[in-house]
Amino acid sequence: MLNYKPLFFITGLILSKLALFMYIPMLLALFTADVGTQEFFLSIVLGHTASFLLLHFGRVQHFRLGVREMFLLTTLVWVIGSAFAALPFMLIEHMSYTDAYFETMSGITTTGSTVLSGLDTMPHSVLMWRSILQWLGGIGFIVMGVAILPFLNVGGMRLFQTESSEWSDKSTPKTQQLAWQILQVYLVLTICCYFGYLASGMTQFEAINHAMTTLSTGGYSTSDSSMSHFSAAAHWNASLFMFLGGLPFLLLIHAFKKRSTKHIYRDAQVLGFVKLVLVSTALITLFLWWHNTFPLADAVRISLFNVISVITTTGFGLSDFSAWGNFATLIFFFLMFAGACSGSTSGGIKIFRFQIAATLLKKQTQQLLHPRGVFPQNYNKRRVNDAIIRSLVAFILSYFITILITAAILAAFGSDLVVSLTGAITAVSNVGPGLGELIGPSGNFASLPDASKWALSVAMLMGRLEILTVTVLFFPAFWRG
Amino acid sequence: MLNYKPLFFITGLILSKLALFMYIPMLLALFTADVGTQEFFLSIVLGHTASFLLLHFGRVQHFRLGVREMFLLTTLVWVIGSAFAALPFMLIEHMSYTDAYFETMSGITTTGSTVLSGLDTMPHSVLMWRSILQWLGGIGFIVMGVAILPFLNVGGMRLFQTESSEWSDKSTPKTQQLAWQILQVYLVLTICCYFGYLASGMTQFEAINHAMTTLSTGGYSTSDSSMSHFSAAAHWNASLFMFLGGLPFLLLIHAFKKRSTKHIYRDAQVLGFVKLVLVSTALITLFLWWHNTFPLADAVRISLFNVISVITTTGFGLSDFSAWGNFATLIFFFLMFAGACSGSTSGGIKIFRFQIAATLLKKQTQQLLHPRGVFPQNYNKRRVNDAIIRSLVAFILSYFITILITAAILAAFGSDLVVSLTGAITAVSNVGPGLGELIGPSGNFASLPDASKWALSVAMLMGRLEILTVTVLFFPAFWRG
Ligand SMILES: [K+]
Ligand SMILES: [K+]
Repeated sequence: MLNYKPLFFITGLILSKLALFMYIPMLLALFTADVGTQEFFLSIVLGHTASFLLLHFGRVQHFRLGVREMFLLTTLVWVIGSAFAALPFMLIEHMSYTDAYFETMSGITTTGSTVLSGLDTMPHSVLMWRSILQWLGGIGFIVMGVAILPFLNVGGMRLFQTESSEWSDKSTPKTQQLAWQILQVYLVLTICCYFGYLASGMTQFEAINHAMTTLSTGGYSTSDSSMSHFSAAAHWNASLFMFLGGLPFLLLIHAFKKRSTKHIYRDAQVLGFVKLVLVSTALITLFLWWHNTFPLADAVRISLFNVISVITTTGFGLSDFSAWGNFATLIFFFLMFAGACSGSTSGGIKIFRFQIAATLLKKQTQQLLHPRGVFPQNYNKRRVNDAIIRSLVAFILSYFITILITAAILAAFGSDLVVSLTGAITAVSNVGPGLGELIGPSGNFASLPDASKWALSVAMLMGRLEILTVTVLFFPAFWRG
Repeated sequence: MLNYKPLFFITGLILSKLALFMYIPMLLALFTADVGTQEFFLSIVLGHTASFLLLHFGRVQHFRLGVREMFLLTTLVWVIGSAFAALPFMLIEHMSYTDAYFETMSGITTTGSTVLSGLDTMPHSVLMWRSILQWLGGIGFIVMGVAILPFLNVGGMRLFQTESSEWSDKSTPKTQQLAWQILQVYLVLTICCYFGYLASGMTQFEAINHAMTTLSTGGYSTSDSSMSHFSAAAHWNASLFMFLGGLPFLLLIHAFKKRSTKHIYRDAQVLGFVKLVLVSTALITLFLWWHNTFPLADAVRISLFNVISVITTTGFGLSDFSAWGNFATLIFFFLMFAGACSGSTSGGIKIFRFQIAATLLKKQTQQLLHPRGVFPQNYNKRRVNDAIIRSLVAFILSYFITILITAAILAAFGSDLVVSLTGAITAVSNVGPGLGELIGPSGNFASLPDASKWALSVAMLMGRLEILTVTVLFFPAFWRG
């Protein structure tokens, strides 16, 4: 039997925290005499009530969570959190609950696909709530990635468990301490990003919002034209902090503590990330320059921005890259799968999985030429054993199966090949925009049918939780236990 | 140092065999007083001369082929064979050598993408040569798959090596004997298919050609409208023999010898193949019926035909499925990757790899729920060890990398997202047609730039040779040896 009480209790805790964060947009609306005070207040009251009931019925003297409870809890927290956090969108913008839930799930998973338009004139409380959702989702994901996923051993994350536990042997931080350190670094970087945006000419409000959605690689903006609305300096600032948001946070913490970045430079995953950014940017820049789409300086800035935006799965828009011609479109299509480093806020398959795959491919080729040779396979100075390969394969398989099923649902409800495919990919990878006019960087998801929006909401959540965390819940064996 | 002499010798042997097969279209042209006699005669003379020189310079007393020689030889035979077999197309149809080479490589790899139109009025010698290329390519591939690839251990084929060697322990056939048995079964089935087509109302010439391109899952036709040109009975006959062409030939041989099909029914891969065909057909039929595209009986026939045609990578056209709406298009997009059984003439990833992946996924999910449990992974009553998983991963990775690079080249030379992607997929999977108007079932590849055609030719060959057989040649380590 599953032990439900602790699940109630922890979900209640999370709801009460979410309700606390709702005070920010409520107070903003109150003090600027803008729309939203009543609606946020109502949501807060509902949130505190639900949280009180859950905490009450879930209270037990002692509890222990087994693996199955952990899986269920991880999914439940995001599903119920979104169900609650969607209320203000519905109440203020008078949108359907489907749309509100989509927008919330997209925010909290840092996907950043939106059904809203008219952002430039939208109540500040709504915009602020969207940004807060992404910011919370970002740090929630990092903490989950460091503290919970390695424990559940989903998707080859054990590789990082050993890494972090070895590191923690020296410095002995417990999980709570680690979460606290992550929060500090995340806050400091957000504040730096905020000042950068201020300096680039953004208003106070724009800078706060974009700082939150940049570090979390979320990609929500306060303008329909996203980053095209802002100065070149803002683009450089965004590129820098999206890049930082794509780095493994444990390494950033280490760098902050030791006042040294050498661990970052030497990390195989970071190096791979940097190489991928540079090579892709070079290709796209050359292509744009060759076709005289932009002058060279602009081509570099715009290419770098878009490449980082897609690889880190931020999804900010700056000049619609799906209108740059077929070659650029195809490169971005493939980059949508990539993702930045594990342990960052970014989604996607992530660099380390490609690197492990590459070492495997190298080993296999050597093996073909020298059938009796012994070729050890290493990654980041660590042996890659068969258990890691297997969980990596399981991850990538379930990743593509999720894309396949999501795309099939979208197609069955009338979307064409490009929308179905890139809509599914962008959701599972938590990128945000797809390709093409409809859902590309200059479009939005409003026109899709409700069924497609729910399918995409599930896909975003599955992508965020490394797929298998959610998939196990669909197995009858899980519930028989 | 690589030992080149035996490579010359064996290539010479293959060229002389190809030249012998050219007598068929030459005699056909001669006796029907049709175009082509001179051109085929010239090609034959050139072929015999080249073959004579290669045999002369390659003659050695004894030879032994190492692994590296085997890899080089396998690729070389197909490349040089195509270079020679392309001559008649160039001479008769006055097409560029690029187009002729593309058409030949497409034929001999049983891909079936074409640059030709006006097939209905084309000289019979040319049509016959196209069909012969596919028929030879089909049996060449089966023999290679049974005799050479397991020896080279490419793409997890060891799984079948053990299987076939165990089987051969009882019946002690040597490779030559096995090749002979394959040829017999292949011939018998081709003849049955021929009579089926005759009975369905095809002319003698149409029946011969389509029999050769059906069994080989090649898909070349004698009409621009492909199978739409023929009767419903012809479609059922095609479905049956494409299906048989997608079965493992070793099992067919076994069935012929034992006069029993129970080994076929019990084979995990065959069962998977049948399930995939039935489920896909049901989905497409329902979709077509729902949208009133066809009456139910027609919907069943046309769906089944197209599903088998794409899964077995035959690629015959019958009513352009890319015009059936988004859902059908997407299903076919995914089926283009599938492929039928290993050891058949079909291309693609192949059923057994998906099944092994599925058993892995199942095992991993169980492992997530019971971290300390021990879950053995079996396939076809055989243990799946880590070496098989690794070579399977290497295959699928290199498969997608080849698609990625090919698609990028197509896009760089101006093709749009759908053409680039489906063009690359259809080539690597040896299916034939892509999706969309240009290269879909009712289009052809003539309008693509030369660079794209060469890229596709390489992709078709790589797909046919299970990718890694060709990839190793690109490694400097291969040549340093
Ligand atoms: K995003
Ligand atoms: K084919």
